[in-house]
Amino acid sequence: MTKKITIAIDAMGGDNSPGKTIEGVSLFLKKNQKNEDFILHLYGNKLAIEDELKKYKITSNLIKVFHSDSVVSDKETPLTAIKNSKNTSMWNCIRSQLDGSSDISLSAGNTGVLLVVSRMILKMMNKVSKPALAGFWPNTKKNGLNVVLDLGANIECDDNNLVDFAELGSALYKSLFPNEIVKVSLLNVGSEEIKGTEMLKNAYKKLKALSSENNFLFNGYSEGNTIMNGESNVIVTDGFTGNVALKTAEGTAKFITDNLKKTLTKNIFTKISLIFSYFSLKKFKNKLDPRKYNGAIFLGLNGPVVKSHGGTDGIGFYYSINFCYKIIKGDLIKQIKNNLNHLSGE
Amino acid sequence: MTKKITIAIDAMGGDNSPGKTIEGVSLFLKKNQKNEDFILHLYGNKLAIEDELKKYKITSNLIKVFHSDSVVSDKETPLTAIKNSKNTSMWNCIRSQLDGSSDISLSAGNTGVLLVVSRMILKMMNKVSKPALAGFWPNTKKNGLNVVLDLGANIECDDNNLVDFAELGSALYKSLFPNEIVKVSLLNVGSEEIKGTEMLKNAYKKLKALSSENNFLFNGYSEGNTIMNGESNVIVTDGFTGNVALKTAEGTAKFITDNLKKTLTKNIFTKISLIFSYFSLKKFKNKLDPRKYNGAIFLGLNGPVVKSHGGTDGIGFYYSINFCYKIIKGDLIKQIKNNLNHLSGE
Repeated sequence: MTKKITIAIDAMGGDNSPGKTIEGVSLFLKKNQKNEDFILHLYGNKLAIEDELKKYKITSNLIKVFHSDSVVSDKETPLTAIKNSKNTSMWNCIRSQLDGSSDISLSAGNTGVLLVVSRMILKMMNKVSKPALAGFWPNTKKNGLNVVLDLGANIECDDNNLVDFAELGSALYKSLFPNEIVKVSLLNVGSEEIKGTEMLKNAYKKLKALSSENNFLFNGYSEGNTIMNGESNVIVTDGFTGNVALKTAEGTAKFITDNLKKTLTKNIFTKISLIFSYFSLKKFKNKLDPRKYNGAIFLGLNGPVVKSHGGTDGIGFYYSINFCYKIIKGDLIKQIKNNLNHLSGE
Repeated sequence: MTKKITIAIDAMGGDNSPGKTIEGVSLFLKKNQKNEDFILHLYGNKLAIEDELKKYKITSNLIKVFHSDSVVSDKETPLTAIKNSKNTSMWNCIRSQLDGSSDISLSAGNTGVLLVVSRMILKMMNKVSKPALAGFWPNTKKNGLNVVLDLGANIECDDNNLVDFAELGSALYKSLFPNEIVKVSLLNVGSEEIKGTEMLKNAYKKLKALSSENNFLFNGYSEGNTIMNGESNVIVTDGFTGNVALKTAEGTAKFITDNLKKTLTKNIFTKISLIFSYFSLKKFKNKLDPRKYNGAIFLGLNGPVVKSHGGTDGIGFYYSINFCYKIIKGDLIKQIKNNLNHLSGE
């Protein structure tokens, strides 16, 4: 038997934990009853975790609980966390990768703290200048998923950082969709070569030189309105722009769906209409459900760390566990190392 | 009688012109039958314009046509336009502001060319370092409109540019909603004071010092997901970020509404549902109709220039004429001059 995929989970991060994290674990176990190629390591307050496990009647031998005395407080910032986060559930969850007892770490804790702690423990990969936070966006194509990075780990970037992000992001995409061709584009204010800052123009030249079938195909510039059209499946940008774009998309989606909800529950006629459209609208809602895309990942460290949305629920947390499982199954770290070989290591 | 509001219109810019521009003119005349406080000056090929005017049976004395031999070609870029745009319909439309024969100019031509030509003819205002492109976003509040700038006139900005944009944008908002309190915020990756680049932190300090009831109230930082929540009504950012945010919002809206359309026309049940929800969904669609927000404006020049979306139709063009009418009625230039008095003129 091959080695099991071991996912280290910080059971205490984010709102309503460990309740929601264990609900997510329970869902993951249910959906993977036939697979026995994984094991989940839960870090946090042992008593609280075991109470929740009982609630969901989880007695699986695919679960192991590791006690941590403390958790990262809500008040912690990236600066204070350097001092105060040692031996918290988050710390121990990430640290477990060092001696090989886990393959990937997952936490719903504060993003800034998680990045600082991950970087302290796992250190940067050779050849990578800065870590990036990569996330998933729905698109109109068959497999319906784009990788977008950086979503906020670095608010200022240079052209070499963007080139690194392209290699990291395309490795992530390959680990999820090994049979697809990876197409990378740079987010810009226009699609013509003359558009954008000098930094983007330099990154453009370097990515064009790296474009090849056994690495990724470089698709040139994308604009904000083409992120979701599926022409490219890896969209590269600096963390400031990526963060604003992600949150703007979230805000726009919320604005529209809130308005739609109001519209369809306004009067007796629209309520009758819902009887006829209920199942179709449910599928529509399901496709746009942000919980399905829950889970962003820090790339560029000597080990993958996945960040779940702090405010998500059990279903959202399930998706982030599932996401960890898939990328380790797709051998993410090997894909990254292969990709980094294309860089000259400047 | 007070002087009439004179709107100079480049009838030839964008797709399907002068057809769509004259359709927009026709709609504007119909909706303003009782107002006689305006006059529309149309610039372009006189024969083509008069053909279209006949088609819509427009014989109003509120219309005047000015012949231009040439139009700005589709192939023109901001660089080539400096040489080639003289005496085009766009050029003459903007030039008419110089001798006071018009108050505002409107064109659906290429954005970059329009900015270069406008800047060449009208020149920058004293105290303003760079012009900004300001647009309108729907929000959840009563009057339902936010000003967002810069949407792409300057891809690199410093803190003083952002301060100028705040003064310009709040003057624009005041010209449209004279009885509202203007609340300005800076787009950033977080709402805490420690977030963002040094440039943003400097702009934050300067805007905080300028915050007052007779200027604008400074609301601190906004994030992408709060642009549309109505807490602030003027959102300030650099042209790169603003352009990406705008296009990302457009792409997200298109993605969702395309999916919704597919969902609601999928089968016989959803088609029946449409019978009951038709009127409500029509209102919903109407609220989100991008044509209602058509019209972005270059601020900071010695005269206002409005840019209509090139691909809009007659209805969209109508909205941009209406928008010109409203801001001149609200005395935009006086509002800007008042606001600029708050700046020290560094």
